[in-house]
Amino acid sequence: KINGDRLWASLMELAKIGATEKGGVKRLALTDLDKQGRDLVVGWAKDAGLSITIDQIGNVFMRRDGTNNALPPVMTGSHIDTQPTGGKFDGNYGVLAGLEVVRTLNDLQIKTEAPIEVAFWTNEEGSRFVPVMMGSGVFCGAFSLETAYAAKDVDGKTVGDELERIGYKGPQVPGDHPIGAYFETHIEQGPVLEDADKVIGVVPAVMGLSWYDCVVTGMEAHAGPTPMGLRKDALQVSTRIMQEVVAIANRYPPYGRGTVGMVQVFPNSRNVIPGEVKFSIDLRNVNDELLNTMHEEMLAFIDNVRSESGLKIEIERVSYYPPCPFHPECVDAVRNATAKLGYSTMDVVSGAGHDAIYAARLAPAGMIFVPCKDGISHNEIEDAKAEHLEAGCNVLLHAMLERARI
Amino acid sequence: KINGDRLWASLMELAKIGATEKGGVKRLALTDLDKQGRDLVVGWAKDAGLSITIDQIGNVFMRRDGTNNALPPVMTGSHIDTQPTGGKFDGNYGVLAGLEVVRTLNDLQIKTEAPIEVAFWTNEEGSRFVPVMMGSGVFCGAFSLETAYAAKDVDGKTVGDELERIGYKGPQVPGDHPIGAYFETHIEQGPVLEDADKVIGVVPAVMGLSWYDCVVTGMEAHAGPTPMGLRKDALQVSTRIMQEVVAIANRYPPYGRGTVGMVQVFPNSRNVIPGEVKFSIDLRNVNDELLNTMHEEMLAFIDNVRSESGLKIEIERVSYYPPCPFHPECVDAVRNATAKLGYSTMDVVSGAGHDAIYAARLAPAGMIFVPCKDGISHNEIEDAKAEHLEAGCNVLLHAMLERARI
Ligand SMILES: NC(=O)NCCC(=O)O
Ligand SMILES: NC(=O)NCCC(=O)O
Repeated sequence: KINGDRLWASLMELAKIGATEKGGVKRLALTDLDKQGRDLVVGWAKDAGLSITIDQIGNVFMRRDGTNNALPPVMTGSHIDTQPTGGKFDGNYGVLAGLEVVRTLNDLQIKTEAPIEVAFWTNEEGSRFVPVMMGSGVFCGAFSLETAYAAKDVDGKTVGDELERIGYKGPQVPGDHPIGAYFETHIEQGPVLEDADKVIGVVPAVMGLSWYDCVVTGMEAHAGPTPMGLRKDALQVSTRIMQEVVAIANRYPPYGRGTVGMVQVFPNSRNVIPGEVKFSIDLRNVNDELLNTMHEEMLAFIDNVRSESGLKIEIERVSYYPPCPFHPECVDAVRNATAKLGYSTMDVVSGAGHDAIYAARLAPAGMIFVPCKDGISHNEIEDAKAEHLEAGCNVLLHAMLERARI
Repeated sequence: KINGDRLWASLMELAKIGATEKGGVKRLALTDLDKQGRDLVVGWAKDAGLSITIDQIGNVFMRRDGTNNALPPVMTGSHIDTQPTGGKFDGNYGVLAGLEVVRTLNDLQIKTEAPIEVAFWTNEEGSRFVPVMMGSGVFCGAFSLETAYAAKDVDGKTVGDELERIGYKGPQVPGDHPIGAYFETHIEQGPVLEDADKVIGVVPAVMGLSWYDCVVTGMEAHAGPTPMGLRKDALQVSTRIMQEVVAIANRYPPYGRGTVGMVQVFPNSRNVIPGEVKFSIDLRNVNDELLNTMHEEMLAFIDNVRSESGLKIEIERVSYYPPCPFHPECVDAVRNATAKLGYSTMDVVSGAGHDAIYAARLAPAGMIFVPCKDGISHNEIEDAKAEHLEAGCNVLLHAMLERARI
């Protein structure tokens, strides 16, 4: 069993870097604070006797040799960058749980056959630079190193320059690195485990997602003198689509999701009928066929609204990730470890994307979820219980040992 | 008849002060540009032989003596401040039409029995300082001079200090000034006249309005991992109320109006379920009983949505103006003048508030509307035809003469 106190202490130590007043963390990718966080974790890894390699996109691999180093490593990892109003656990837990596994193996002087690696991936959050899950995406070839290097933050600084500046543009070619199996522990970021009062979520798959930008263009006009029948109210037309996004998701339970998270109204004045409304649409499902059905139903609905209202409605898909089922052997490794350790458990499909979906393109992969308070993440009040984090780390230890063999 | 070319030339001259690239005007109340505009108009008034008085809230009265100066003046006026993206005609037309009436009387050496006054009221737009229609509001005692002086712009500058700075804090006590009758010419700010192809709108009344701020509080959560049934989506609940605002207005044709113009979503992120939505509601009707019915129906609907959704919904009325019927004698004066001059005409209820609604609390009042292009105002593309502006000014001349007597 791992040392829960040590894991908690490391989490709290790392959370000091970029700590916010409200108890959260702001440590955006490739900032000075990210460098400090990276240096701290790399220092701990060296203390634990791990060897470090860094690739050209700044992914860091911290390796503990096996008895047979010809075998590809059993890897675990996540990210240490955070949202602007992020928490202490999202990503950080996955990395430090991996480090705790290694420290425990050292304490118990356990030698594994395959090497063990702990990775942290660059810019998972995508808050400062898009696309999200950048490091793991480049690693698995989802997009090119050049694309990633060229990504700019709001100040026009590029990923390439910022990597260089903080000293994390490594020599290794991304992906030039075999993986035997990949596990990732993460807070659930949802309320399902807490609601069901379970400690460990076995993750069979990650939902696919489609992101859209929708723009409805009407005619701005004075709210008083313009008769109802002569209006082209972009907001009223938008509300119909916003409601349909949720209705579509509700037609495909239990894994349909539909969210409008971002809305901008122009000119956004109390006595002016909105002339233009821009909003985002987020559709998800764990079944790609159903996700596509949801997509089609939304487009058909928008076509109807367009012809009924006579307003201009533009809809553009800006991102698409297919659902990612995890490898049965890795899912079973997590399930077996949980059973052996006697934790209460249930299957939880991940609604959020993780670095593991890119790792899964290269190797058998699986994930372990632990509850987080009220299901909240991407928020400074994000919280998790030390005993749950310890349990998830124990499951990680045993799942990795099943694959790496003692 | 008035001189349409001179009126147009003055409008274009005044529009140079604060002219924007897109052909509009940005001349916010009590700025240096407002001072320049005021100085220009006051200069013209002096050239026309008018005497000037300024009151403590900066309202300017430009007076042409009558043959019996014991009679209260027949007044016309409007405002010369503009919206941040305002046009050349809103307000400015009403002031310069008044000046053109005086110039015409001078040209024709016509003496009126009652004096004639042309007023421009401070800060009608309310863009820089709230409340709107400030100068006429203080003048008629709707709120106090102290309240008005204390109003601050976004930089914390007060009306009192800014009036002093631009030299328009006059000595006269607001309202210490009898009015015999009040007329105001204005662009319609709506599409009704243009739609019906009429030149003059006789304005029987101004609609009453109720403004509200509504805040719906749910729970922000990640769009992926949060099942539909466990959401407290503040936007979805808000869209029901937004739609009802329009539905209520549609239940009370032809003068019911319902608009949601301003929306703010928190945290406004693509993959976060909105935790809070703030939006404005604008309800109008020319009948106060119906306006109150609309108000009650909205509150009842919100009560229902609150209990159905379980979300917190706060609704606060932030402004209320009762409908303002104009005085039959002034409405008839406008109607008679229009008939005499042979312009095509119809009655148009004003959907927008004007300084005339405050003047109407002190004296018989009436308004004259002329068409504006596509019904658009509060916009740099606001436009009106010289021949329509000329027609409105002719109607003003004859309506004022009917009341002031030759
Ligand atoms: N884990 C996480 O928050 N990923 C961001 C992308 C998503 O919305 O799923
Ligand atoms: N005339 C005008 O735009 N007044 C502003 C107040 C309103 O919305 O009616």
